[in-house]
Amino acid sequence: MFKEIIANVRKTVPLVHNITNYVTVNDVANVLLACGGSPIMSDEPLDVADITSICGGLNINIGTLNKNSIEAMFVAGKKANELGHVVLLDPVGAGASALRTDTALKLIEEVKFDIIRGNISEIKTLVLGSGTTKGVDADAADAVTDANLQEMVKFVKEIAAKFNTIIAITGAIDLVADKDKCYVIRNGRPEMGKITGTGCQLSGMIPAFAVANKDNMLEAVAAAVCTMGAAGEIGFERMLPGEGNSTYRNRIIDAIYNMDDETLNRYAKVEIF
Amino acid sequence: MFKEIIANVRKTVPLVHNITNYVTVNDVANVLLACGGSPIMSDEPLDVADITSICGGLNINIGTLNKNSIEAMFVAGKKANELGHVVLLDPVGAGASALRTDTALKLIEEVKFDIIRGNISEIKTLVLGSGTTKGVDADAADAVTDANLQEMVKFVKEIAAKFNTIIAITGAIDLVADKDKCYVIRNGRPEMGKITGTGCQLSGMIPAFAVANKDNMLEAVAAAVCTMGAAGEIGFERMLPGEGNSTYRNRIIDAIYNMDDETLNRYAKVEIF
Amino acid sequence: MFKEIIANVRKTVPLVHNITNYVTVNDVANVLLACGGSPIMSDEPLDVADITSICGGLNINIGTLNKNSIEAMFVAGKKANELGHVVLLDPVGAGASALRTDTALKLIEEVKFDIIRGNISEIKTLVLGSGTTKGVDADAADAVTDANLQEMVKFVKEIAAKFNTIIAITGAIDLVADKDKCYVIRNGRPEMGKITGTGCQLSGMIPAFAVANKDNMLEAVAAAVCTMGAAGEIGFERMLPGEGNSTYRNRIIDAIYNMDDETLNRYAKVEIF
Repeated sequence: MFKEIIANVRKTVPLVHNITNYVTVNDVANVLLACGGSPIMSDEPLDVADITSICGGLNINIGTLNKNSIEAMFVAGKKANELGHVVLLDPVGAGASALRTDTALKLIEEVKFDIIRGNISEIKTLVLGSGTTKGVDADAADAVTDANLQEMVKFVKEIAAKFNTIIAITGAIDLVADKDKCYVIRNGRPEMGKITGTGCQLSGMIPAFAVANKDNMLEAVAAAVCTMGAAGEIGFERMLPGEGNSTYRNRIIDAIYNMDDETLNRYAKVEIF
Repeated sequence: MFKEIIANVRKTVPLVHNITNYVTVNDVANVLLACGGSPIMSDEPLDVADITSICGGLNINIGTLNKNSIEAMFVAGKKANELGHVVLLDPVGAGASALRTDTALKLIEEVKFDIIRGNISEIKTLVLGSGTTKGVDADAADAVTDANLQEMVKFVKEIAAKFNTIIAITGAIDLVADKDKCYVIRNGRPEMGKITGTGCQLSGMIPAFAVANKDNMLEAVAAAVCTMGAAGEIGFERMLPGEGNSTYRNRIIDAIYNMDDETLNRYAKVEIF
Repeated sequence: MFKEIIANVRKTVPLVHNITNYVTVNDVANVLLACGGSPIMSDEPLDVADITSICGGLNINIGTLNKNSIEAMFVAGKKANELGHVVLLDPVGAGASALRTDTALKLIEEVKFDIIRGNISEIKTLVLGSGTTKGVDADAADAVTDANLQEMVKFVKEIAAKFNTIIAITGAIDLVADKDKCYVIRNGRPEMGKITGTGCQLSGMIPAFAVANKDNMLEAVAAAVCTMGAAGEIGFERMLPGEGNSTYRNRIIDAIYNMDDETLNRYAKVEIF
């Protein structure tokens, strides 16, 4: 399925600039190192243009946005666009507050994103302009299921076309699509929802995969999503009695540290529509 | 002792808004998930009213306060009051700086708190208006001991009456009281003091317990304090030679992930005065 | 080699004020507790003078600086100088952006630092006024190697003289020097570079070592650097198949928690020039 995607990350060590929330930032940095990339964090408007210039990718995550970091998102996003870098948006909590919804929408207007990754409620919010996101989790009523899969595949391709970007919707079933092609990924474990930040971690990892595989970006994004899911499965296999979500978090990052393309392909449960 | 308290948390999955410090925020999020709640973090004044509105509880922790987050604490606190949410104050470092002492006192004046949780030096500071907090740790001279227990039980009931709130003082001996009734809890391990943030984690967990047991709030707060102590004991039992505070932190959160009411009651060392 | 250095830290429990980045701040706090110190974090200009006053050491790390925290660095640094505290600068990313380079240089101008710790590219940037730091990692072309060791020892002594401070340059070979004497340390593992924040952790730990050994500060700083390297080796010995950088992080902090002077001296690979 996936060819040399991870090998390319490890060979080229893409430097990724993260403007991300302070809840999960340490895990984002460690996951980027685990997958073979290199992280740098900066969210001060006076700093971000320089920092993003030396990187290959930019990850904008609005999880704990404030007036200062919002300004930094626009400065960094525009600079990264100028330089042709890979830019990702993670609209954490869009639909849960007006500030988050408005910031995400304005970012999409003024910055060209190569990838937007979120849960289904956040992505729906971007299309509809308002949403029912339950905090930072998707509304159960929105979920991608076997029953609505064909409809959702069509929907995600349409959003990808509308925003001229790759859309990655993660949940029990993950969808990664551009306007023409959609990867449907069934990796991962429900217990991953009991760890804070697996979504944020994925949003940090995706730009590294995309930068290292720029001519093959849709496949690279799907491979990153699949890597996180496979790591969730491998980490879970290793759980001992009495362990819980804190150890599980470590085991998932460890599994990414040890991931290679062969393992990824062995675990991948992917269909293409 | 405790009836269905944790079961109620796991059944209702209370969403808790945290305005908390960036030192221990990741652990706070993971503990909230571990106990069956759901965390969301936001500290931007323009964001917090919306975010707190979709939650059931609010945790205000002044551990790394700044001008912007202080403003957010007042906005969120007043909104949560309006909506009848459970609101907790953790006055981290009150007594260690004028800004922390003044912010805590002003918050208590303008926001109605259901619970105030801190170490004994921080709580004394709130009563006296100044203190001798040693950084973020209690002054040894202030400690609750068997020798001064009766006097301290009286003192904490008086503070609870004065501030019309539940007071939770944590240390070697924990006291959880309203004006009429005081739980004296002797769970936990001294090694928990070698981990950053077990207090902050508890302050994140308490609103989830309280929201899920609103008609029984004093018992719920005592159960949360007891849960943290029991998890400290269970985590410690599982420590292997060569392990230290970093692994201990993981094992404590893991123990909360696996906690149920039966286990809690088996570990609970509680007297009521 | 090292005498009673760690015992002195554990005996005196130095309180260290950290103005540090939010990426690795939790690990910095846990490492400070692990080595026997006590951490407090504050980066609000209105808070830092009070907080630093009750401490013995101050760690200024510019890893995620912003306008507000930069102001706090100057306020805290000057207050700590007034009080004769141990003050350390970690110029994270100096050379990677103008703001970072300028802030580091201005801090050195206005605050007296007892110790400056960074990678070789960051330290070169301080001398040259601009640099080629690759994000937060050193440029490979700058590395201290056996081939250029004598030259680098001379260079680091000169910088120590120029800035009237102790310089700690960490990398595959670590150099810790004042103007007269240079410790060359070959502890540690290359895999430590796959964990975010071992440098930041060291910068948190050094002031604790220095405060507890004030009459012997150069040796104390070298011992701290050596402790981090030895912990990296001990943690690595304990790694199991399938584990990766996240568990390695925990094992390193655990190793510091269990470190004593005897173990440190057994592991130390140190020469003095």
